Amino acid sequence: MSFWRKSTDIYRELTEVERYIQGALRTRQAVLAKGLKELLDAGGKRIRPALVLISGQFGEYDRKKLMPLAAGIEILHMATLVHDDIIDDADVRRGVPTVQAKWGKDMAVFTGDFLLTRAFSLITQNVAFENMHKLSDVMKAICEGEIDQHQTNYNLDISINDYLKRIGRKTALLFSLSCRIGAEESKCTPEEVWNLWKFGRNLGMAFQIIDDLLDISGDLKTMGKPAMTDFGNGVITLPVIYALKKPGFRKQIRDIADRREFTPEVLNHVREMVHQSGGVDYSKALAERYIRRAVNNLKALPKIPARDSLKDLVEKLQKRQY
Amino acid sequence: MSFWRKSTDIYRELTEVERYIQGALRTRQAVLAKGLKELLDAGGKRIRPALVLISGQFGEYDRKKLMPLAAGIEILHMATLVHDDIIDDADVRRGVPTVQAKWGKDMAVFTGDFLLTRAFSLITQNVAFENMHKLSDVMKAICEGEIDQHQTNYNLDISINDYLKRIGRKTALLFSLSCRIGAEESKCTPEEVWNLWKFGRNLGMAFQIIDDLLDISGDLKTMGKPAMTDFGNGVITLPVIYALKKPGFRKQIRDIADRREFTPEVLNHVREMVHQSGGVDYSKALAERYIRRAVNNLKALPKIPARDSLKDLVEKLQKRQY
Repeated sequence: MSFWRKSTDIYRELTEVERYIQGALRTRQAVLAKGLKELLDAGGKRIRPALVLISGQFGEYDRKKLMPLAAGIEILHMATLVHDDIIDDADVRRGVPTVQAKWGKDMAVFTGDFLLTRAFSLITQNVAFENMHKLSDVMKAICEGEIDQHQTNYNLDISINDYLKRIGRKTALLFSLSCRIGAEESKCTPEEVWNLWKFGRNLGMAFQIIDDLLDISGDLKTMGKPAMTDFGNGVITLPVIYALKKPGFRKQIRDIADRREFTPEVLNHVREMVHQSGGVDYSKALAERYIRRAVNNLKALPKIPARDSLKDLVEKLQKRQY
Repeated sequence: MSFWRKSTDIYRELTEVERYIQGALRTRQAVLAKGLKELLDAGGKRIRPALVLISGQFGEYDRKKLMPLAAGIEILHMATLVHDDIIDDADVRRGVPTVQAKWGKDMAVFTGDFLLTRAFSLITQNVAFENMHKLSDVMKAICEGEIDQHQTNYNLDISINDYLKRIGRKTALLFSLSCRIGAEESKCTPEEVWNLWKFGRNLGMAFQIIDDLLDISGDLKTMGKPAMTDFGNGVITLPVIYALKKPGFRKQIRDIADRREFTPEVLNHVREMVHQSGGVDYSKALAERYIRRAVNNLKALPKIPARDSLKDLVEKLQKRQY
């Protein structure tokens, strides 16, 4: 949430969303309550709920209606993170130990289920029928996407197109849905809804590419998790895919991946090769392209403070160090 | 479903529910589709959807409305089974390898999530607002119950009361909710809804006690999973709790549990002690008590064929070998 500290209005609204999240996650099960509190305390940028709320400001902004939706979508996102960490065998996330590292995979399964259930409860109670349907489709696609990703683990033949499809489902879909739900539930015009939907999609694509770049170049301190964890987990991201296309690096990276011994030295070597191949620059350029598209989508929207808020958000995401 | 072969009407309706389930679980993700097909082919008694449909017959039976609800509730149940098997490290269920044994824990996490999502989608599209709310509460309680169970694993100090609370949440709640949703969505009178709800609860309690008894005395062939798997997994069920209260068996069972070396011989020894302690007889008597209560609940309902169907169901469950 510190991400929003300078945007007083949004920060205030997100503080309220946080209260809804806390309310929805109340449980008499003591261990679960402790695990959930740690999850909440670890924070997060809360981009998805912010997108719901800001998009709502393009229409008849109804705080009471949008708050639980924003909270529900963030809880949904938290559920996917908790279950993702099981798959990735991740030890840290957002700088703190993951549920599964601290409490075991078993607790992580049920904590994720609990979050999913709570998210559905919040959302179904507050959303129009058609958007509920849409959300179900998105959740279906997210699950399918996760399985796709798992299936293509360590698959070095994945194309840039496969990658873009994957991050589209994994990240961009929930970004665009957040915008759409916020806009539709606030009775925006179909044109506004459409532009916000596209904005969310382009922002989500840029966000995930930047996130994947940060995995290449970031460290425990800036990222809240060690560098090159994706590659170590067999998740082949854009910069690596690019490097794999270059004859000079292809064989070396393949050999390392086949050996599956990912010491910090080995991972650092891969990181350097990815840089040298131009994979980082290529990915930065592609992220910039999605950013430009997102900014263009904004231009089609009415000139109101909400539009400036979205512009600010784009700039903030752009400035994440990579 | 072979469970229903002799009840022509219900069998026909459940065949239709099966089509709804298959429709809801369609996916273009090939591996997921394969895993789901195996889950479906493994079958199951489909008691929960049958409860929805039969309860609906006490009111204005609307096939089109109840079918997706019945399917959704069964899919919800399937989701909990898939995630349960992760926790239990179970290799077989219903006589076939579990998702996690065959495809790995990772696939099991997402298969369960996919099922949960599909269940919510089916249910929210077809249920009245108040029942959706009720269902969310039930799901919350089921998740909390699972975590409770996990927390009390290998805890030999669990009381009979703790056990009853646990199976109440784990099983009886979804049984009673199935009855309630079927009845309410068919505009039954509040009294009918109340009696069906209580019937479902008592039936669910009896069902779970019988299931736990079958784990003590059953084998791979009759149960579709090896005997004494609960004890081996640290899940302390009623017959064992009873044996633990008897001074003659208490220390021996405790020592075995502490050692955690559950060879077939050791498990067989525990099984014999549980029998000798009277734990099996005690549990049978308690199951019978819940059965009698369920039958009494039926007496308060109108004398229509649906009532006979529920009576048949009670008898069928009672006759499961234990």
